[in-house]
Amino acid sequence: MATLNDMAVGATINIFTAFAFFLAFAILRIQPVNDRIYFPKWYLKGLRNSPLRAGGAFITKFVNLDFKSYIKILNWMPVALQMPEPELIDHAGLDSAVYLRIYLIGLKIFIPIAFLAFAVMVPVNWTNGTLERSKNLTYSNVDKLSISNIPIESRRFWTHLVMAYVFTFWTCYVLKREYENVATMRLHFLQSERRRPDQFTVLVKNVPPDPDESVSELVEHFFLVNHPEHYLTYQAVYNATKLSSLVNEKKIKQNWLDFYQLRYSRNQSTRPFVKTGFLGLWGNRVDAIDFYTSEIERISEEISMERDKLTTNPKSIMPAAFVSFKTRWGAAVCAQTQQSRNPTIWLTEWAPEPRDIYWDNLEIPYVSLSIRRLIIAVAFFFLTFFFMIPIAFVQSLANIEGIEKAFPFLEPIIELKFFKSIIQGFLPGIALKIFLIFLPSILMLMSKFEGFNSTSALERRSATRYYIFQFINVFLGSIITGTAFQQLDNFIHQSANDIPKIIGVSIPMKATFFITYIMVDGWAGIAGEILRLKPLIIYHLKNSLLVKTEKDREEAMDPGTLGFNTGEPQIQLYILLGLVYAVAAPILLPFIIVFFGLAYVVYRHQIINVYNQEYESAAAFWPDVHKRIITALVVSQLLLMGLLSTKGAAQSTPLLITLPVLTISFHLFCKGRYEPAFVQYPLQEAMMKDTLERASEPNLNLRGFLQNAYIHPVFIGEDEDGSDISMEELKQEQQVLVPTKRLSRRNTPLPSKHSGSVSP
Amino acid sequence: MATLNDMAVGATINIFTAFAFFLAFAILRIQPVNDRIYFPKWYLKGLRNSPLRAGGAFITKFVNLDFKSYIKILNWMPVALQMPEPELIDHAGLDSAVYLRIYLIGLKIFIPIAFLAFAVMVPVNWTNGTLERSKNLTYSNVDKLSISNIPIESRRFWTHLVMAYVFTFWTCYVLKREYENVATMRLHFLQSERRRPDQFTVLVKNVPPDPDESVSELVEHFFLVNHPEHYLTYQAVYNATKLSSLVNEKKIKQNWLDFYQLRYSRNQSTRPFVKTGFLGLWGNRVDAIDFYTSEIERISEEISMERDKLTTNPKSIMPAAFVSFKTRWGAAVCAQTQQSRNPTIWLTEWAPEPRDIYWDNLEIPYVSLSIRRLIIAVAFFFLTFFFMIPIAFVQSLANIEGIEKAFPFLEPIIELKFFKSIIQGFLPGIALKIFLIFLPSILMLMSKFEGFNSTSALERRSATRYYIFQFINVFLGSIITGTAFQQLDNFIHQSANDIPKIIGVSIPMKATFFITYIMVDGWAGIAGEILRLKPLIIYHLKNSLLVKTEKDREEAMDPGTLGFNTGEPQIQLYILLGLVYAVAAPILLPFIIVFFGLAYVVYRHQIINVYNQEYESAAAFWPDVHKRIITALVVSQLLLMGLLSTKGAAQSTPLLITLPVLTISFHLFCKGRYEPAFVQYPLQEAMMKDTLERASEPNLNLRGFLQNAYIHPVFIGEDEDGSDISMEELKQEQQVLVPTKRLSRRNTPLPSKHSGSVSP
Repeated sequence: MATLNDMAVGATINIFTAFAFFLAFAILRIQPVNDRIYFPKWYLKGLRNSPLRAGGAFITKFVNLDFKSYIKILNWMPVALQMPEPELIDHAGLDSAVYLRIYLIGLKIFIPIAFLAFAVMVPVNWTNGTLERSKNLTYSNVDKLSISNIPIESRRFWTHLVMAYVFTFWTCYVLKREYENVATMRLHFLQSERRRPDQFTVLVKNVPPDPDESVSELVEHFFLVNHPEHYLTYQAVYNATKLSSLVNEKKIKQNWLDFYQLRYSRNQSTRPFVKTGFLGLWGNRVDAIDFYTSEIERISEEISMERDKLTTNPKSIMPAAFVSFKTRWGAAVCAQTQQSRNPTIWLTEWAPEPRDIYWDNLEIPYVSLSIRRLIIAVAFFFLTFFFMIPIAFVQSLANIEGIEKAFPFLEPIIELKFFKSIIQGFLPGIALKIFLIFLPSILMLMSKFEGFNSTSALERRSATRYYIFQFINVFLGSIITGTAFQQLDNFIHQSANDIPKIIGVSIPMKATFFITYIMVDGWAGIAGEILRLKPLIIYHLKNSLLVKTEKDREEAMDPGTLGFNTGEPQIQLYILLGLVYAVAAPILLPFIIVFFGLAYVVYRHQIINVYNQEYESAAAFWPDVHKRIITALVVSQLLLMGLLSTKGAAQSTPLLITLPVLTISFHLFCKGRYEPAFVQYPLQEAMMKDTLERASEPNLNLRGFLQNAYIHPVFIGEDEDGSDISMEELKQEQQVLVPTKRLSRRNTPLPSKHSGSVSP
Repeated sequence: MATLNDMAVGATINIFTAFAFFLAFAILRIQPVNDRIYFPKWYLKGLRNSPLRAGGAFITKFVNLDFKSYIKILNWMPVALQMPEPELIDHAGLDSAVYLRIYLIGLKIFIPIAFLAFAVMVPVNWTNGTLERSKNLTYSNVDKLSISNIPIESRRFWTHLVMAYVFTFWTCYVLKREYENVATMRLHFLQSERRRPDQFTVLVKNVPPDPDESVSELVEHFFLVNHPEHYLTYQAVYNATKLSSLVNEKKIKQNWLDFYQLRYSRNQSTRPFVKTGFLGLWGNRVDAIDFYTSEIERISEEISMERDKLTTNPKSIMPAAFVSFKTRWGAAVCAQTQQSRNPTIWLTEWAPEPRDIYWDNLEIPYVSLSIRRLIIAVAFFFLTFFFMIPIAFVQSLANIEGIEKAFPFLEPIIELKFFKSIIQGFLPGIALKIFLIFLPSILMLMSKFEGFNSTSALERRSATRYYIFQFINVFLGSIITGTAFQQLDNFIHQSANDIPKIIGVSIPMKATFFITYIMVDGWAGIAGEILRLKPLIIYHLKNSLLVKTEKDREEAMDPGTLGFNTGEPQIQLYILLGLVYAVAAPILLPFIIVFFGLAYVVYRHQIINVYNQEYESAAAFWPDVHKRIITALVVSQLLLMGLLSTKGAAQSTPLLITLPVLTISFHLFCKGRYEPAFVQYPLQEAMMKDTLERASEPNLNLRGFLQNAYIHPVFIGEDEDGSDISMEELKQEQQVLVPTKRLSRRNTPLPSKHSGSVSP
């Protein structure tokens, strides 16, 4: 095991790497040519149009020659921290602001715990001689700080017991306060002055088929009858899968056309050619520009035909609709009540934001949903516990003998020493790496198949699954070596009593491993995040190959989003590690605190300057965050129980069993107290807002405001054709919605004084 | 182990006992003197006033001399079965009718399963020679019918596997159909023509304290603001705990007074005396009649003072109210939605029936509820697993040496042989018996402490707990001998894999034990139920000691209720046994079928003629029934898995794991599909009923109908004083509600031609 010295060396290397990344970022970001990579948010908000400085030569368009600015390379950090939270919510939305609070909660939990642990438990652990006396053990100074150094049946374990209580109470206190804060923030956000279509709208699913009426008529009649005083209007959901694939196809072809036109305009000597077959590898050679022009024309025609079909054919209307009400009260009532005596039809729920809707899943019937859920549950079980099997199979193929057998003609090349070492050293690992890279996408596909209606719900479910996967394969997998399936097999053959013991005993021994993991995965990962290497490369590639106009350049920007489905499970893994090691080996805590601090600053910077959230769920994910921290707490308590019972401190077991019982009932209390705020819209709030609005805007044309709020994005996105005037109007209507958000920012000047645009 | 012969003998004895009970019942029930014990329901409904026959001597008032009627002693059985279900619902309520369906579901599940098991599995089991070959085993013919007779690794286990699938599918099919039927019956019942106050009323709990307004004002204002178009009126809930204890006290004193007056009137030579101290054992000797007359006067004064205090002092109003709405739609909306941004105040729920309300629990605040739930969960855990400890302690005291030590002066009596044998044979068991008799009351107290609002909810929760207790202590406790705590200790020291194995292996061996259990507890219990020995004795005691007038006699009747909290868990235990043994030892099935058949007839008779339900929850218990049958199914599947894995049929494990997965997802489907019908009132139904009513009764005075529907029973019950004219009016209003139910029975003549009054 590593000594303190080894660990200091490791920490130094990692700090140095992280610092190098930060330095690279600090230099790259002040180059005007990278401006759209590091400040896309401001471009998208229309507050920044070009990185050009007043009066500069051609070269300054690309390279920053103002050497003074190089001195202040780290000043983005205080800048990122300066924007106050209300302004941040206004700037980037509540989701982002609350997401940052997850990092903050890590700091809030672990800084006091670390202080206490170092003040109380480190001395208690250090002043024992167990490890020194047992001569056949190799140990290091790090281990002397951990619980391993306490002799069996020592009375000193009472310290650990008391500390476990203190840590639990502190964590619960922080959790409760945060839940309260976030719930208040959410309700305040929903009550904010801006009028939003989702406040008036309910998503109705599973409209039953009717032989006499079309879906549209049925919806209108049903709500006119059952909500006579509140019903206002409805919007049908069109089955636009084909249309949106056509639109996508056109976009791709358009990109190629642009590419070839640009190439031709630069080098007019040869017209570019292209092969019409698969991936451009086979088929007739034709003139590329002509080919794509005609293709685009063909697709455009198809699109307008499909669009006509959608609007005229009643069969293209899906059995779902967005029903709008005259008041927020009416919508809140409809969303929270059961409509029909058959609870699988006329299902109503509060409509997600228009941007947030995942359109493909709106029509899935109830029975199909149940079956899909079962299939995915089983599939996820196999994915988690048996994912090593296909990977091991690929790995067995990807050795030298396998390749030589499959492709004998490659033998001479492979037998070269250079290639041989690459294949042997690299290939076996690469299958696993590729799998892990694609895992979030696989989980996302699973969630989509399961039938959620909104992107936010998809991401939340994927995050849950990713956390479970990491818990089993990273956390348990690292503590008890072996594949998840072997562990599962072990566990079902071991008693409920032994499982926490087996894991608990290994925990102090794995402290150094997890410290390294935190430094490599956490610290370096965060530093890599801010550098944005992938968007940097892609943007410059696109810029040189495709971009002709300023509009193209805008499209080449890839601000990205927060990535809740991968980011949050990572934080949760660190919180789990922190809570588990807080009692067993507090040496881990400073590393976690550094991670949370660094991540908080970096993500705050990214949220202000880079990310462009695709939707706003008003922090609907917080109950999940809370639940996972509680899970981590209970796991840490069970493992401590296992650890202490092997240390001969069995008399503490009753006291330790009390802890998870208390924690779980605390969770149930919080769930009852705060979770409804994340699911339902209280009538009192709705009524208040309605009354206010009626007083302030008595002549509001709500129908006009809501008429086209929920329209499938393909009807909006495909506007160049101008195929339909009403569609054009829709689009403008839609766009009116988005700026309202910014323009209503009465109290903050534009551009903000705390914004990221202070970069020189 | 018992042979088939032994079992036949046992069955004969039990059948004989049961038949003797039935005979006793048949004779006792036709004696006029017992009429109020065996037909109280008809007295309570006002359809039967006295057992007197036309033209009879004095003796015929007490003994039936019509010898023809003795011949038809079993004709109550077909009579009990004749009343059609709709009339039964009208006569006894939906709860009772659906309760009978639980017995029917037992028959529906097990009759086809038994046929299949005897046709397929019994031959498969019988035609093996495993038990015959293994010479060191004692076995019986019964065991030859069970799975024990199949050799290890036999291919015949495939039969059992296939049968497990068939049984599961059949059970699920029956369950689904029944859930559907009951849900339809419930909705139809709620839609029935009768207007009920609970359809318009919502129970509001946790009204927040307000410094400026009283609770009444606050409630009125809140609902006027937030449900302006639907709010009608409200009724405050008074803190009547003291008043109702005073009323109770008065009733007891009144009983004593009646007793002494009756004694004095029979023997006027000596005035009765009574001692005023504890239980009449100490204190001054005073004249009993004078003493109780003055006591009653004193309490009556206190009652009227307390009543004045309640109606005038605003502090006696609890922070809860019954809020009524103009329409069913308004009430359904309010009950299903969240009112305030703080989800722990202004909690609304569909009001239970007025009779069903458990008044003492209406004011418990949210935080207190959470804590109470935790306390009860922990207490129930200890009750289930450690109840043997205090009983063993009592038993250790209740031996002869213990008694002699504690009360040395008793020694000469105890040492008599007769007493000694009684004490030794009887006392140790009696502590356990007493505990088991009081267990349902203990569980009911727990549920009351937990804070449910309605008697039906209290009974449902108690039933759940009683089932868990029986599952652990009767089912598991009989299979693996030892106390529950020893089992728990074993289980946490065994692997998840081994637990089903250990239990599974013991199952076939315990078949004969459970057959005996079913005959003694089930058959004899049912026969005892119909005899009503306890009410019989108590009624005759009361009749001779207290009854003066016809009204007293009416009060001396104890029709009793269905006892969902003890009856349903018993049925569920038999369903569990049936499902577990269906594959392992089908010989058990006929015994269970006889139980269900017998119980169905007996309870149908009792429901028609005896029980008087205290409330009507409209079959709200069905989701619990469904859930427990599903639990039994999953348990049976897991145990079969354990059993087969010890039989070397490990290759069947994946197929067997699939079964619980499918069963649980079937349950989730049913839960989503049918459970809402038992919790919520769909808006469509409410609107339909509202519209109908508005058309048929446009001038309905709903406020008058609802004004006093929810009034604490002490304000009604205590009417002799006539202390308050409005209270008198209330009472009449209240009574108007009950007969509506009967008078609206348009289609059935009164008295019913199928009624129990056909007894000669």
